[in-house]
Amino acid sequence: MTYIKVGLIGYKFMGKAHTQAYKNTNFYFEPQDPFQLKAICGRNEESVKAAAHTYGWESSETDWRSVVERDDIDLIDIVTPSNTHKDIAIAAAKAGKHVLTEKPMALNVSDAKEMLKAVTDAGVQHMVSFNYRRVPAIALAKRMIAEARIGNIYHMRAHYLQDWLADPQSPFAWRLDKNVAGSGAHGDLNAHIVDLARYLVGEFAEVIGMSETFVKERPVDNGKEGKRDVTVDDTTLFLARFDNGAVGNIEATRYATGRKNKNYIEINGSRGSIVFDFERMNELQFFSNEDEEHVQGYRTILVTEPDAHDYMKAWWPPGHLIGYEHAFTHQANDLADAITRQKPVYPNFEDGLRCQQVLEAVENSVKTRTWEMVEKSNG
Amino acid sequence: MTYIKVGLIGYKFMGKAHTQAYKNTNFYFEPQDPFQLKAICGRNEESVKAAAHTYGWESSETDWRSVVERDDIDLIDIVTPSNTHKDIAIAAAKAGKHVLTEKPMALNVSDAKEMLKAVTDAGVQHMVSFNYRRVPAIALAKRMIAEARIGNIYHMRAHYLQDWLADPQSPFAWRLDKNVAGSGAHGDLNAHIVDLARYLVGEFAEVIGMSETFVKERPVDNGKEGKRDVTVDDTTLFLARFDNGAVGNIEATRYATGRKNKNYIEINGSRGSIVFDFERMNELQFFSNEDEEHVQGYRTILVTEPDAHDYMKAWWPPGHLIGYEHAFTHQANDLADAITRQKPVYPNFEDGLRCQQVLEAVENSVKTRTWEMVEKSNG
Amino acid sequence: MTYIKVGLIGYKFMGKAHTQAYKNTNFYFEPQDPFQLKAICGRNEESVKAAAHTYGWESSETDWRSVVERDDIDLIDIVTPSNTHKDIAIAAAKAGKHVLTEKPMALNVSDAKEMLKAVTDAGVQHMVSFNYRRVPAIALAKRMIAEARIGNIYHMRAHYLQDWLADPQSPFAWRLDKNVAGSGAHGDLNAHIVDLARYLVGEFAEVIGMSETFVKERPVDNGKEGKRDVTVDDTTLFLARFDNGAVGNIEATRYATGRKNKNYIEINGSRGSIVFDFERMNELQFFSNEDEEHVQGYRTILVTEPDAHDYMKAWWPPGHLIGYEHAFTHQANDLADAITRQKPVYPNFEDGLRCQQVLEAVENSVKTRTWEMVEKSNG
Amino acid sequence: MTYIKVGLIGYKFMGKAHTQAYKNTNFYFEPQDPFQLKAICGRNEESVKAAAHTYGWESSETDWRSVVERDDIDLIDIVTPSNTHKDIAIAAAKAGKHVLTEKPMALNVSDAKEMLKAVTDAGVQHMVSFNYRRVPAIALAKRMIAEARIGNIYHMRAHYLQDWLADPQSPFAWRLDKNVAGSGAHGDLNAHIVDLARYLVGEFAEVIGMSETFVKERPVDNGKEGKRDVTVDDTTLFLARFDNGAVGNIEATRYATGRKNKNYIEINGSRGSIVFDFERMNELQFFSNEDEEHVQGYRTILVTEPDAHDYMKAWWPPGHLIGYEHAFTHQANDLADAITRQKPVYPNFEDGLRCQQVLEAVENSVKTRTWEMVEKSNG
Repeated sequence: MTYIKVGLIGYKFMGKAHTQAYKNTNFYFEPQDPFQLKAICGRNEESVKAAAHTYGWESSETDWRSVVERDDIDLIDIVTPSNTHKDIAIAAAKAGKHVLTEKPMALNVSDAKEMLKAVTDAGVQHMVSFNYRRVPAIALAKRMIAEARIGNIYHMRAHYLQDWLADPQSPFAWRLDKNVAGSGAHGDLNAHIVDLARYLVGEFAEVIGMSETFVKERPVDNGKEGKRDVTVDDTTLFLARFDNGAVGNIEATRYATGRKNKNYIEINGSRGSIVFDFERMNELQFFSNEDEEHVQGYRTILVTEPDAHDYMKAWWPPGHLIGYEHAFTHQANDLADAITRQKPVYPNFEDGLRCQQVLEAVENSVKTRTWEMVEKSNG
Repeated sequence: MTYIKVGLIGYKFMGKAHTQAYKNTNFYFEPQDPFQLKAICGRNEESVKAAAHTYGWESSETDWRSVVERDDIDLIDIVTPSNTHKDIAIAAAKAGKHVLTEKPMALNVSDAKEMLKAVTDAGVQHMVSFNYRRVPAIALAKRMIAEARIGNIYHMRAHYLQDWLADPQSPFAWRLDKNVAGSGAHGDLNAHIVDLARYLVGEFAEVIGMSETFVKERPVDNGKEGKRDVTVDDTTLFLARFDNGAVGNIEATRYATGRKNKNYIEINGSRGSIVFDFERMNELQFFSNEDEEHVQGYRTILVTEPDAHDYMKAWWPPGHLIGYEHAFTHQANDLADAITRQKPVYPNFEDGLRCQQVLEAVENSVKTRTWEMVEKSNG
Repeated sequence: MTYIKVGLIGYKFMGKAHTQAYKNTNFYFEPQDPFQLKAICGRNEESVKAAAHTYGWESSETDWRSVVERDDIDLIDIVTPSNTHKDIAIAAAKAGKHVLTEKPMALNVSDAKEMLKAVTDAGVQHMVSFNYRRVPAIALAKRMIAEARIGNIYHMRAHYLQDWLADPQSPFAWRLDKNVAGSGAHGDLNAHIVDLARYLVGEFAEVIGMSETFVKERPVDNGKEGKRDVTVDDTTLFLARFDNGAVGNIEATRYATGRKNKNYIEINGSRGSIVFDFERMNELQFFSNEDEEHVQGYRTILVTEPDAHDYMKAWWPPGHLIGYEHAFTHQANDLADAITRQKPVYPNFEDGLRCQQVLEAVENSVKTRTWEMVEKSNG
Repeated sequence: MTYIKVGLIGYKFMGKAHTQAYKNTNFYFEPQDPFQLKAICGRNEESVKAAAHTYGWESSETDWRSVVERDDIDLIDIVTPSNTHKDIAIAAAKAGKHVLTEKPMALNVSDAKEMLKAVTDAGVQHMVSFNYRRVPAIALAKRMIAEARIGNIYHMRAHYLQDWLADPQSPFAWRLDKNVAGSGAHGDLNAHIVDLARYLVGEFAEVIGMSETFVKERPVDNGKEGKRDVTVDDTTLFLARFDNGAVGNIEATRYATGRKNKNYIEINGSRGSIVFDFERMNELQFFSNEDEEHVQGYRTILVTEPDAHDYMKAWWPPGHLIGYEHAFTHQANDLADAITRQKPVYPNFEDGLRCQQVLEAVENSVKTRTWEMVEKSNG
């Protein structure tokens, strides 16, 4: 049996999510070429060794360069902070490895272009982990749009709402430091919406945005006195026009008290509408104006039918929910399939670049206070 | 212009609901023969005079017999307590008046039969005010069942939940005295469900029920000391078989904390299901297994379309809700139409009797602790 | 008994809504000085006579000037199209009448200022019919914000969604002609949101908006051939900053398939959030982060408690819903109270002007493609 | 390191669910003594070997007796059909193994008593896999009831609704044969409700039930002609009294079109209510009448807080859902903890017996058509 031998760079939250994906892909989907968990990598030797043991990796490393150079690795999976993605991805591509990277793909458009060039030149598989595309309800939305069930799209209205900063007394964290995190809600949450918008609606033409930092400084953590400046956006909102004439209204915030992980997307078209809310990720709402008038209404599709809904045959009977990490498992399975059969997989680095271009146009519009066109060149 | 001249016996909560119905029928529906508010009747002369003034009745009376005998009255509307319905209805019928009575129609099956005989002998119009039938969402449910949208019915699952007695310290009230109120939750709330069950599902075959009085005595009101025995049921539940083979599960309570007026009805059939909740009375949920499998789901129909939903043309544009009292207005308009065109109107006294027969069979089953057949004779 | 004698200019949809308000105020609220329906006015003599009869007005007129000049009128209520509001309101004020006008108050800021000056100079009562303020759930939201239940406001996210233009084949109508209607979704729907935003959040500082007309021409109606240009906005969206630092995201459209009258408002603050949806107008959602952590959640308040919720004592027991037109009744009752007791009533013409100033700033930003400050002077 | 060495008897749907539980317990919860997947057992040698490979078991066996006798096994986990549970469990106990069995524990009360005696005599750990107890929302409900948040319980209203038999043309299956399946909806679905009722409300006193088989015969499967009799219940409903005075209304069906796996539980008490729906298993609804009156409402608790909700620290950040199989993982972890620390774990075989006693009393009441007391002795 042929295995896809994985080297995982990073081992925290996302390292855990990706590891379970490789294992559960083998367990639930039985891919033709299963994953083999060859090496996990982190800078702290003791911690990464413990992670290797708990998660079931064959070996651990403390320098990502060693992993990239190992002959027994086919796929480099990057789940470290964004500022490290570029160097690792390019080195991996040059070493002939397939590359999967967490989102956002890069710190900026320029880096993303370099990364795209590297994987294209190397002829390896490349993928960005926009996991939402593999939530079955989103996959169903995509299919329904392709089936013309909502007709021509007029509106996309989306907001990704969290609340973990709503309390002005909650302490400073590294995610609030622009040097480390790149940006705040925009890069973290709007990135997801932008990818889904491109997936479901189409390419962005122009944008106008606003950002706000509600709490300008926060207490330092660890019992010490003093405050520290918050240097990222707490919220970023933007209006958009798509190439196909649709209108977009997109917002991300960490200050929506009571909203824990509400990635809400509503798309209105000439024949119908669809609505998704990640806090009820197993459901998709759908309205069709082709139903007879007296029985029209938003229906709540429970997206758990093994025989009708993508990915669900691998899991449980109808009405049995899946959870957050399952989308990573679906993603890993699709990637395995692409590697084995040498066929393309999406979202790839070009998708990652396009997303970056939209995010950057929004950032520019915040500064210029006027509309900005969205660039779409690859180099 | 011909008017339908009304005498209203009773002037409290239901007197107010019925009065507005007559006025709003004229206003919104413009019936061929409008209602004329001739006389309102109550035992307290001062109070009933004030009600006549506020509500806009031409005259007031203190003895219902006087109203029944007046030549300038066409319709007697009875909204007094249940123990008075029989005498007034029979006298009205003998005087050749049409009769509308609040539910429950009578204290028992025997009285209901006498009342039915009286109106039939007199050849007058007769109606029981089961107002829920005229909620547009229920009218839509009826239509959809007639259109075979849910196929053969397997299940009716209904509960009418209120919570105004959930606090064991809330004081005694006349509704808790069997001599005055006849029964508790059963006659008050299950009566509505039974009528809707007959309307939407069919006739009852047999029943088995249970009743409970959770709080056996309560503080007397008005600052006095002491307690008084509660002599009615706090809750009554029953299981049922319908003549057509469907299975019923019905429950009423005043102890469902947080449920204010939840008259919930779910009907499951071989092709679909419908769900109604009176706390969202402008909506009807509908599931159809004739939709394609991947887009099946419970849809929420907003029953406010002037062009598609019964009664709604008289009101506002789509998406503009109506409220509780509107069902009484619809009922009054249907009654006006029936009187003017001399055609039958439902639910009539036979429906009221059938409802009483089901309620009484349940009460019997509570005593005998075994299943009871439901009688369906008229005399 | 003293009456408030009303002259109503206009008699279609809003004429019906306002007429029922005067009648139902007398019926349900029994104001100290009840309304008297003196005169209704419209240009078509036959139609307005019929309306007077159906609705119960004492007389009808075909020239609004005649109504304004009548000595037996205290209050002029204007429900005609927006382009007529200014002349009627100023004439009424000069004649010493109180003035109530439908929204939007005027065609532009300049007219609104003249109107405000006229009523202020005349010392009469003046009110704009932003009826949503009198929906009990909105009144409750206002109260809860005043009670500091949601703390400092970070976000207002609001969209008013309808769908009656989603079908590109639906015919041209006067509302799509800028000369007649002034604007499209913006003036019709965003006007409501802007007033509620000012009511619940505070004054606007700056805005940036976009508009779109999805269907540029539509078939003419009445069986004739040919198309006609749509000259108003199908949708207008805007981002905003409030004076208090809150961030606004506001959108109105007539192309949100399946949304019939969804006026959705979400407000997130440092201690909690509230959510309102006009399609479920009897409910208000509320999240409090002051609940213990393991039992926090969005709660759905059924705003029907006679003893706890504004306006509800006049209506029915808990859990019995009210409908669209009830908010007009509440508005009429508050106006009666203000006239009788000579105390101020809101929203008044200054509120109407402020709303107009926000709407106009958005329109300007659509043209200039950059942020616009919101003017707040009265003259 | 000490391992808990598992022998799993059965390898289909439940075998998969239990296997992932052992693996994910090690992965997410890192128990002191992790599970070791020693042997999986099935009658078809080829199939069970494949399962061993896919799922990661060290060995496979075709005779459960061999597994029970192996020295390298600590825990026997039984996921085979109900009619095999008794023999395997008793043999395992006699061999000194801990025993986990799927529900329902046995075919009847008598067998359940023998099984309880065997594990008690052997002094081994014993557990029944009523997995719902480990859904975090149910664990939260239990905690909230213990905190007296809903006060004295008046009502439990629960129904477990599926729809896979709603189509009368769907073919016969072994689950419809009483000889194989024991019972239909009652043993399969009501068993879950009965266990949760005992967990959350208390012991049952008496019951009265009804059963129905809507479709008496069904086409045989596999392209052959002919029909076969359905010998189990399609639906079973029952009313109940609990020892503490609460009233129960319980129903299970496979004919509720559109309900895929709706295990709905509503409990009303003197101070509040809780509501659970397995189709939204990450949520728990809660109403408290101790909130101030104007802000009371049913709140939807998203039960995903790592710091506040049982089991959730092992998974993801707030607002990230878990799925169906996670409850099995929680169960496995609690069992590991109990085995390691030699402390009791619930629900045990006594709980399984109690459940059986309730189910059997309902079945008796269906036959006798009258109320039946629920026996509670252990032998």
